[in-house]
Amino acid sequence: MDMHTLTRELQLSNASKIVMLVADGLGGLPRTPGGKTELETAKTPNLSALAQMGVQGASIPVKPGIAPGSGPGHLGLFGYNPLQYKIGRGALEATGIGFELKDGDVAIRCNFCTIDKNGNISDRRAGRISSAESAPLAISLRQVKIPGIEIFVEPVKEHRFVVVFRGEGLGGNVADTDPQITGVPPLDPRANDKDSHRTAQVATEFLAQAKKILASHPKANFHTMRGFANKPTLPSYKEVYGLKAAAIAVYPMYKGLARLVGMDIVGSAQTLAEQMDTLELAWAKYDFFFIHFKYTDSTGEDGNFSEKVKRIEELDTIIPRITKLNPTVTIVTGDHSTPSYLKGHSWHPVPTLLVSDCCRPDPHTTFNETTCITGGLGHFEAQYLMTLAMANAGRLGKFGA
Amino acid sequence: MDMHTLTRELQLSNASKIVMLVADGLGGLPRTPGGKTELETAKTPNLSALAQMGVQGASIPVKPGIAPGSGPGHLGLFGYNPLQYKIGRGALEATGIGFELKDGDVAIRCNFCTIDKNGNISDRRAGRISSAESAPLAISLRQVKIPGIEIFVEPVKEHRFVVVFRGEGLGGNVADTDPQITGVPPLDPRANDKDSHRTAQVATEFLAQAKKILASHPKANFHTMRGFANKPTLPSYKEVYGLKAAAIAVYPMYKGLARLVGMDIVGSAQTLAEQMDTLELAWAKYDFFFIHFKYTDSTGEDGNFSEKVKRIEELDTIIPRITKLNPTVTIVTGDHSTPSYLKGHSWHPVPTLLVSDCCRPDPHTTFNETTCITGGLGHFEAQYLMTLAMANAGRLGKFGA
Repeated sequence: MDMHTLTRELQLSNASKIVMLVADGLGGLPRTPGGKTELETAKTPNLSALAQMGVQGASIPVKPGIAPGSGPGHLGLFGYNPLQYKIGRGALEATGIGFELKDGDVAIRCNFCTIDKNGNISDRRAGRISSAESAPLAISLRQVKIPGIEIFVEPVKEHRFVVVFRGEGLGGNVADTDPQITGVPPLDPRANDKDSHRTAQVATEFLAQAKKILASHPKANFHTMRGFANKPTLPSYKEVYGLKAAAIAVYPMYKGLARLVGMDIVGSAQTLAEQMDTLELAWAKYDFFFIHFKYTDSTGEDGNFSEKVKRIEELDTIIPRITKLNPTVTIVTGDHSTPSYLKGHSWHPVPTLLVSDCCRPDPHTTFNETTCITGGLGHFEAQYLMTLAMANAGRLGKFGA
Repeated sequence: MDMHTLTRELQLSNASKIVMLVADGLGGLPRTPGGKTELETAKTPNLSALAQMGVQGASIPVKPGIAPGSGPGHLGLFGYNPLQYKIGRGALEATGIGFELKDGDVAIRCNFCTIDKNGNISDRRAGRISSAESAPLAISLRQVKIPGIEIFVEPVKEHRFVVVFRGEGLGGNVADTDPQITGVPPLDPRANDKDSHRTAQVATEFLAQAKKILASHPKANFHTMRGFANKPTLPSYKEVYGLKAAAIAVYPMYKGLARLVGMDIVGSAQTLAEQMDTLELAWAKYDFFFIHFKYTDSTGEDGNFSEKVKRIEELDTIIPRITKLNPTVTIVTGDHSTPSYLKGHSWHPVPTLLVSDCCRPDPHTTFNETTCITGGLGHFEAQYLMTLAMANAGRLGKFGA
């Protein structure tokens, strides 16, 4: 049974406030056996203070051994089973650049490519064309006109851009046109179901016009289309939890993910301090606050252990600004681990800390990868964090009599 | 996969005895951060002795964050997935007063109400009429006669009573007649599926006759019907585990829940000491003993920390009478937590202890909320406790070759 079936039925309304502070990629690894992780190395007096009042555990983002991307990682934290709810590649790419998809939109990841005089692909990424060169080229594709369809073209980076079709009857189930090899022509857009025929037609027309517009470019004289996807249908926070939720994030991807579950994007903070300003300003207006901190992930991705340590210490310094607001429930977690040792997302459980008046504190006085495995929350799938948050906020009634 | 699919296939027969001692609402919370819970405060030398021989863990009644009522709480302990098997409100109310439902019965929770001269409800609870006044009134409704239907009317408390219809073709899916507001007439019973048309007809006839019987009462001149429910269909302990099971409980609700899974209700004990007498007398005749102790829950519900401590100590004193019988498997657990701090059922995992010759003891020498989180059983959903019990009793064969 979907946990939302329970939360829809059991949700209660009260004046409680829940703060979920997500340090992206929080979990790490020691550099050598017996060594300390980034979080264990960092000086985190404020997290330790929270640990003394709270209960901690090891959050499994999806299932043991599964390293998630940002999409499933956050869906899990938001309480959406990441194996049940999927965000198509095109929709995630559009979300990641801050494009606000509407119901029925089809989003497509596009790659500039080079085709030879016979129409065969000679380079699938147009010689990894620079962003400076590719952005105006993507924008030039906004000239494409198709009756009845609103078209958006947005540059992403290097050879990548996004196309969104908006109109009636556009299914998202169309096969990629990228043949994955060179020396052959791109494939024609082909619908994989009845509802997507119109989308395939529109894509075919788009490609025909794009070919003319791009024809004279020496490298990027055509493009492929991949990851066709409708805007995913996710029930909203308001519906499944009865929560008025605010997202305080710096990067478009996380704002987009929050928007997909119906959170309001609040403020325009560019730093952690500004995020705290926004939190204070929005405090009275919302029940739930998702605060996203990117740099624990990006430093991990860079393989920069000491920089990740510093970013964790930076995060620690702002904790008092949260506790001063006296939230009913405070959660510190991550959407996955990003050990600098691995330079990428990993499957390792994420240290997760929850503080409330009725959280049943465990004996731990610090918060890290070692303490969390023997914490009072045990090892649990991230998708259950929201029911724990709701329960600790007094927002869930009793199940059954 | 339902665990019963496995236990049906793998169950073995032997002479083992399993005792499951359920301290209702066992888990608690400290009154202040860093303080002790009720179980941690209580002097429990006998539970500590069991802990030294046994293995403990944190039992999650349903799912993280979900606080169960007695029904789903016990279904979990009995090994029935509480999200799969549900006991309708009417059936639970009948069970709670000790009414023995039969297959096909429809049980209905009824509220006396007051209707004005226009037939509109002016008080949905008949001025919270006293039990002394309402009980004879409920009994007067036994005059209602409907051909082909056996009717039972049982007083509950204050404005509440139970009606049970017994007969052919009575589905349980009928909408409540309580409109939930005053100033409007009660709703007519309406079937929500084909199988329940006859039930709606019977209920309509019952209400017509009841209206005449109650007409002259100044407050309780009518009644509503809610929570229509058939007796739930639960496979029996005998079938799913091959166990001949006895329930030794004081309160009707728990006898009723045990009866629903096919346990025999043994003895008529009113005290814990009498429950132990019953256990000794029934020892030779059963494989499995469910012993229910209510007062750890009721003292928690009352918010009486010190009284809950005393009740835990009372429970501790009878442990030697159980161990003296030398059960193959002894389990001490609760159906949920009832922290006196919260004055109600909660979601917190329940300390659970299992002792057997082959239980793989963990290092703990005491048994409480803090030790259980690092116990050998880990954090597990209550629905898996019965397979652990069966395994420790040597009653489960190998799965697969």
